[in-house]
Amino acid sequence: MAKKRNIIVGQSGGPTSVINSSLAGVYKNAIERGFDKVYGMLHGVQGLLDEQYIDLSTQIHSELDIELLKRTPSAFLGSCRYKLPEIHENREIYEKLFEILNKLDIEAFIYIGGNDSMDTIKKLSDYAIVNGHTQKFLGVPKTIDNDLALTDHTPGFGSAAKYIGASTKEVIRDAEGLTYNKSMITIMEIMGRNAGWLTGATALARQEDCDGPDLIYLPEVPFDLAHFTEKVKDLLKKKASVVIAVSEGIKLEDGRFVCELGISSDYVDAFGHKQLTGTASYLAGYLAAECGCKTRAVELSTLQRSASHMASRVDIDEAFMVGGAAVKAADEGDTGKMVVIDRISDDPYMSATGIYDVHRIANEEKLVPRNWMNKDASYVTEDCIDYVRPLIQGDYQPIMVNGLPRHLVMNKSVVKSAGRRARKKAEE
Amino acid sequence: MAKKRNIIVGQSGGPTSVINSSLAGVYKNAIERGFDKVYGMLHGVQGLLDEQYIDLSTQIHSELDIELLKRTPSAFLGSCRYKLPEIHENREIYEKLFEILNKLDIEAFIYIGGNDSMDTIKKLSDYAIVNGHTQKFLGVPKTIDNDLALTDHTPGFGSAAKYIGASTKEVIRDAEGLTYNKSMITIMEIMGRNAGWLTGATALARQEDCDGPDLIYLPEVPFDLAHFTEKVKDLLKKKASVVIAVSEGIKLEDGRFVCELGISSDYVDAFGHKQLTGTASYLAGYLAAECGCKTRAVELSTLQRSASHMASRVDIDEAFMVGGAAVKAADEGDTGKMVVIDRISDDPYMSATGIYDVHRIANEEKLVPRNWMNKDASYVTEDCIDYVRPLIQGDYQPIMVNGLPRHLVMNKSVVKSAGRRARKKAEE
Repeated sequence: MAKKRNIIVGQSGGPTSVINSSLAGVYKNAIERGFDKVYGMLHGVQGLLDEQYIDLSTQIHSELDIELLKRTPSAFLGSCRYKLPEIHENREIYEKLFEILNKLDIEAFIYIGGNDSMDTIKKLSDYAIVNGHTQKFLGVPKTIDNDLALTDHTPGFGSAAKYIGASTKEVIRDAEGLTYNKSMITIMEIMGRNAGWLTGATALARQEDCDGPDLIYLPEVPFDLAHFTEKVKDLLKKKASVVIAVSEGIKLEDGRFVCELGISSDYVDAFGHKQLTGTASYLAGYLAAECGCKTRAVELSTLQRSASHMASRVDIDEAFMVGGAAVKAADEGDTGKMVVIDRISDDPYMSATGIYDVHRIANEEKLVPRNWMNKDASYVTEDCIDYVRPLIQGDYQPIMVNGLPRHLVMNKSVVKSAGRRARKKAEE
Repeated sequence: MAKKRNIIVGQSGGPTSVINSSLAGVYKNAIERGFDKVYGMLHGVQGLLDEQYIDLSTQIHSELDIELLKRTPSAFLGSCRYKLPEIHENREIYEKLFEILNKLDIEAFIYIGGNDSMDTIKKLSDYAIVNGHTQKFLGVPKTIDNDLALTDHTPGFGSAAKYIGASTKEVIRDAEGLTYNKSMITIMEIMGRNAGWLTGATALARQEDCDGPDLIYLPEVPFDLAHFTEKVKDLLKKKASVVIAVSEGIKLEDGRFVCELGISSDYVDAFGHKQLTGTASYLAGYLAAECGCKTRAVELSTLQRSASHMASRVDIDEAFMVGGAAVKAADEGDTGKMVVIDRISDDPYMSATGIYDVHRIANEEKLVPRNWMNKDASYVTEDCIDYVRPLIQGDYQPIMVNGLPRHLVMNKSVVKSAGRRARKKAEE
């Protein structure tokens, strides 16, 4: 009997609206390329270490299921924020993982994620090469933050940008309608710890029918509270409704986050990131006192990454495409690489997949370049907007059932026992 | 020369996704019924007192403009939160308003708004009758809160409910994807000071592909923090991700708002309403300490009332219909009345307009009945969900331009001078 050719795929890090479109791309391409089984890790590498996985053929039964999966936000397989230790620190974990992969006859391991996930691909492929394992390890980019190096942009970013652009227009409209001869300041807080791509996307709202936000502050440049206040006061002389977009991660020259000025917080997540909240709230309170007018804070919060009802067609299609490209690369013998998106042309917009050594990518952050902001870093330039605009085009109309978008969800009867095993393990 | 037959329309109170569909309904019906001019008050009665109005034919030029207007959130004409004084308190304001109406040959005055706006219709029609003025005054219901009496429901509610239902599903999906063997509690805060209709609408997320929120707390029933905590702890024994929907206005048995437990605030708006923020934030902090797990607060904020990209077709159509019905009623001689929506049939859902004396409506709040909540008031019943579900059906696909929904906005060149006048006045 010929050796089985199986493939396993996992999802990691913060969800996006289109991470499942990449999963659909992996599945469809793997089946077409003649892989025997497509396994899905439940909750990424962390779940795999608990032997939590499913055969995806128990979940995806039809072309309609593929279409639903492409429109389902968040990680269908479940995600994790688990960082593999360095190989020399804990060889046992690596041995255990490869034992599981060997048992399942895995030929290719595809991981859909951001910077931290590419670190996982790097370590696993390094370990495999050094120890003579034949599995191929490929990374599929995913992050709303668009902060991965070498790829023109990341799947997930376009849909988040589209949702943010549309929501910004709606917030501006709401504020305009409410302000007559009394001023009001609206502060929108957008996700993005270090990279301001999503905050910059609020500028998409500037169209024929909308002025867009009045000010946009990215985390790449130190935030000058005095200069900011001055600009807001100037704007209030000219217009009743002032709308400002700020990144959750803006910080002062001395390194303090603006959100820390209000409430001090020492909480950090597993990767050592500071947990941020309340930048807009802080500034709303501050400006209310400084400018003596009504202010309000609007946090777009988790909907930025999960509002698949407003996903971009370009983004869903590209997410699907990079999933497929990873399978193709693995099938052709590549390992330790990440699929990237290359922009072939701006107008008309065209893109293609490329592939890069993951050692060149992992743990590097791509930030908004300084020359894509205006002189005093209070707005993004046309170049920046032109870069983002093609990525928000087109729609996949949600498949509506009883008035709400339908998603594909895991058939729990298949994984129930596995779930119980994991719980038991966690309790031990 | 025959006397001109003109009509004037205004918008008041908090915006909704479909308040402009009612405006479109007024405009189209008024033209069809042979009114000479359709004026729009800018920022409601408050703007009208400053002689701020426009001829709507300078703004709406085509059937496409009508379609865009139906899809434009927030008040196209601008809104206000202005409460007319009692007639005996300040007759001058009434004399001034009627002077303006007479000067413009106004035959009918249509006001689109909520409880406070119906109070305006009541006072103006009373004043007109007592003082022998012939203008007709008609109210068009509008509020996402669905708290108006006598109408089966209010335009604006269905679209807000649809957005909330879809967003709740996306938030639940996001939370599920992120929780593995560590628990997480998500608290969603929904608009609704006294009426829990919108918070109840989160239950729409319970469909074949989603469990819906685990707990739902409306402001109609006192909130028992100890009982709540107990229920959450029980849920955490059964599932990793717990999602709770709370109204911004939930309060304890002793009358204190839950949001007041965190930060004390004495700020009230022009109508004496307490300004609320942070119910979800407070509970997230409280549960993090009580349950020792990760918690997060998600406020849907102003997008609940302005997310026209996710509006319900039933809602947009009904909003249009009640606008037209008000014009018809005025044209036929009615005054001091509000158009209502009667539910003719549940399945298939059918509705028709009715009309009620505004004295029976103004300042009365319709709350969620106690028997539409479960025994311990921690969820809504199927009866409640069955009531809401027909109102979120169908879509008006946004008219997308360059990746974002296109809105109709005021041509400012027509109103520029008027705007300057108002600003000058405000400065005096």
